[in-house]
Amino acid sequence: MTQPCTLPAAFTGQLDELLGDRFSVSMAVREQHGRDESIFAAMPPDAVAYARDTAEVVAIVKLCDQFSVPIIPYGAGSSLEGHTLAAQGGLTLNLQQMDRVLAIHAQDQTASVQPGVTRKALNAVLRDTGLFFPVDPGADASFGGMCATRASGTNAVRYGTMRENVVNLTVVTASGEVVKTGQRARKSAAGYDLTRLFVGSEGTLGVVVEATVRLHPLPESTTAAVCAFPDIDAAVQAVVQIIQLGVPVARCEFVDPVAIRALNLYSKTGLPEQPHLFFEFHGSESGLNEQIALVQEITQDFGAGKFEWSASPEARSKLWEARHNVYFAALQLRPGARSIVTDVCVPISRLADCVNETIEDLRRSGMIAPVVGHVGDGNFHVQVLVDGDAQSEIDQAEALNARLVARALEMDGTCTGEHGIGLHKQGFLVDELGSVSVDVMRRIKQSLDPRNIMNPGKIFSQ
Amino acid sequence: MTQPCTLPAAFTGQLDELLGDRFSVSMAVREQHGRDESIFAAMPPDAVAYARDTAEVVAIVKLCDQFSVPIIPYGAGSSLEGHTLAAQGGLTLNLQQMDRVLAIHAQDQTASVQPGVTRKALNAVLRDTGLFFPVDPGADASFGGMCATRASGTNAVRYGTMRENVVNLTVVTASGEVVKTGQRARKSAAGYDLTRLFVGSEGTLGVVVEATVRLHPLPESTTAAVCAFPDIDAAVQAVVQIIQLGVPVARCEFVDPVAIRALNLYSKTGLPEQPHLFFEFHGSESGLNEQIALVQEITQDFGAGKFEWSASPEARSKLWEARHNVYFAALQLRPGARSIVTDVCVPISRLADCVNETIEDLRRSGMIAPVVGHVGDGNFHVQVLVDGDAQSEIDQAEALNARLVARALEMDGTCTGEHGIGLHKQGFLVDELGSVSVDVMRRIKQSLDPRNIMNPGKIFSQ
Repeated sequence: MTQPCTLPAAFTGQLDELLGDRFSVSMAVREQHGRDESIFAAMPPDAVAYARDTAEVVAIVKLCDQFSVPIIPYGAGSSLEGHTLAAQGGLTLNLQQMDRVLAIHAQDQTASVQPGVTRKALNAVLRDTGLFFPVDPGADASFGGMCATRASGTNAVRYGTMRENVVNLTVVTASGEVVKTGQRARKSAAGYDLTRLFVGSEGTLGVVVEATVRLHPLPESTTAAVCAFPDIDAAVQAVVQIIQLGVPVARCEFVDPVAIRALNLYSKTGLPEQPHLFFEFHGSESGLNEQIALVQEITQDFGAGKFEWSASPEARSKLWEARHNVYFAALQLRPGARSIVTDVCVPISRLADCVNETIEDLRRSGMIAPVVGHVGDGNFHVQVLVDGDAQSEIDQAEALNARLVARALEMDGTCTGEHGIGLHKQGFLVDELGSVSVDVMRRIKQSLDPRNIMNPGKIFSQ
Repeated sequence: MTQPCTLPAAFTGQLDELLGDRFSVSMAVREQHGRDESIFAAMPPDAVAYARDTAEVVAIVKLCDQFSVPIIPYGAGSSLEGHTLAAQGGLTLNLQQMDRVLAIHAQDQTASVQPGVTRKALNAVLRDTGLFFPVDPGADASFGGMCATRASGTNAVRYGTMRENVVNLTVVTASGEVVKTGQRARKSAAGYDLTRLFVGSEGTLGVVVEATVRLHPLPESTTAAVCAFPDIDAAVQAVVQIIQLGVPVARCEFVDPVAIRALNLYSKTGLPEQPHLFFEFHGSESGLNEQIALVQEITQDFGAGKFEWSASPEARSKLWEARHNVYFAALQLRPGARSIVTDVCVPISRLADCVNETIEDLRRSGMIAPVVGHVGDGNFHVQVLVDGDAQSEIDQAEALNARLVARALEMDGTCTGEHGIGLHKQGFLVDELGSVSVDVMRRIKQSLDPRNIMNPGKIFSQ
């Protein structure tokens, strides 16, 4: 049961005056901002503010600083680890109305956007420029959120993650100062890399109010293909070899038979219920032919069936839309279920071991859990479907995740390739890097946010 | 005149005991560590310690912490901005004896090295693996130093800088704690990006004791070519177009007629004294042909002469060795001179303007100053040759640099593409990012090094 807003009247009064109907303490609005795609119970904020520009963000942050009110930046609300839940109450700062593309520098292949712009919105604006923005998490996430979680997606194997694709940021810090992290040059050795410090900081160090990102030339030619494998190990081994040979695949996605079943039901893909790899190739005509010949040879060495081609833009778009919808498709395998999604990423030499041991663990558990992965990066997800009201199922899924993370860490991998820590993986972060490293993070946090108002309680306890 | 060592006897006694003849207060050793390639007068440390392993680094740092003695990490001593000068005295920590390649994971395309390993030493070890490490600053720099300055070089246009090529670091912090910044997976969203925070921190946040770096497959085919242009503008315009078309050149270097003269004298290259571009192409046979055809077409559109090929490994190696030696070659144009080297980097759309205005500025100044650049990144260097004893010449060169930096910043560029801030560019850093951003860096520094012992006085005043 959501509690009444407990913020001081002097605080809410000033926000009311500043924002008018863009400030709300209504139960419905608060509850809407207190949920995400994670397994956590709703944690509504005490109030929600909608900012329209940087000056408003500064004013709002300064008020939160003055009254020591937690502030939770909020974009598309699609995070999976509880990042946007108001764990300590406070004010959720909804940035969806800061949705302008501020500049496109086509010659320099950069775009500057406000935090509420989504990846699809930017790509729609770019349509006639011959350029595109590659980072594509499952949801149509906002740039603020993608920066905050260091997002990646299916293209990262070729084009990198947000780490590689953010050129600079403008951030409002906890004291309401506006910090620019860099210029627009392709490289720089000018002081600490504040850009990379804020990318992945999950809203705990400041509010991103502007991001300049790298764009990439649309490839001369693009082809997509899917192929089925006799077993999971064969599919993963084929990926390992493709990556080790340095084939510049643009996408290389693993989809297990359970996920294929979900896709067939949800997106009418009509694929055989076998382990699959989905590929996309970018390049010149002849470059494409070289890549494809090599990948076909390798996959056939591992017993794959014939490539099914999606050369037309429509067919490709249908294929990748199906892949992007796998999360929602999988939920239909068990109507009413919620998901607990794992996110390990391991060195490619250990990928086959990690996937095989995990599939065996899953088999023993009897849970419904499709497995998909950006396997070209060594990253894969197990989406465990649980009854959200059955604690025993949640415990079972969490135990599986804990075993999976331990396995990945032992292989020099990470507990999270792209979803972030949020509320969910704080213990794993310590397991992964050690308490000394996490304490370094904590000291940085304290130096930039001494009152601990910026998304408190996320990444680590503070 | 170097002053006697003023460190407390209790401190030097313990180091003596710990390190034996690997601890020195001799004038000669101190003076050798008090100079670099910058224009600054020598600033010798009070003592020099040579560490052999991480445990020794920890012990040395803890002693420095206990006695509040500045500690300056020292690799190959090739930095250009005064990074290794003992501006506040203290102990120089020479890491050259930590020179082991600890692991090569060929399947994952990573190597783990100690900080004293140099880029050439690693590539020699990699010779039979089919892999190479691409980052190549002019000198045979050490990995500790390359991490500390966020180094790049001629390959960055294709393979990125140290920012993109460091997978994780192990760092000894100011309190003597050993921090691991990440695992060996290709990507991770696990907490703050400590790896990128330490890369480029110029020794002010800790001592790098181990680095895991990305390796890249040796290309199937490699070709290099040089071509001469009628004027500087034509050469730069050709580069801009090559980059904007997304041609994946591996190297794309500009060399002005003055630098060509220096190369001809020093390396017997026998090139016409005109503006040149030096290219290297990596790829499959057919990919190479596509790249070359496109680049030839573009360069000829801008009036370039014929490509001179260096297809054989020996000829290529001679070409790039000549290019890497340009710094020393240029010094011969004015025997006994010292260099003041500029390092701006601008968005590619502004490169031609920036180079043209700078060349015009140089022409008016009458100084001897070859211009070379990693122009595919928008980065170029003016190497102004000055009489190190003539303050007026130094002032004139610094004034030229200040105008150049102002020009670059106005174009959304940076005061340093790859050399770092050190002692030399602290004012420019504030001009570039603003005092609020630099203060964020300062707060991070204070949080991790409260006694200010780690290379104090570098990047910003503390």
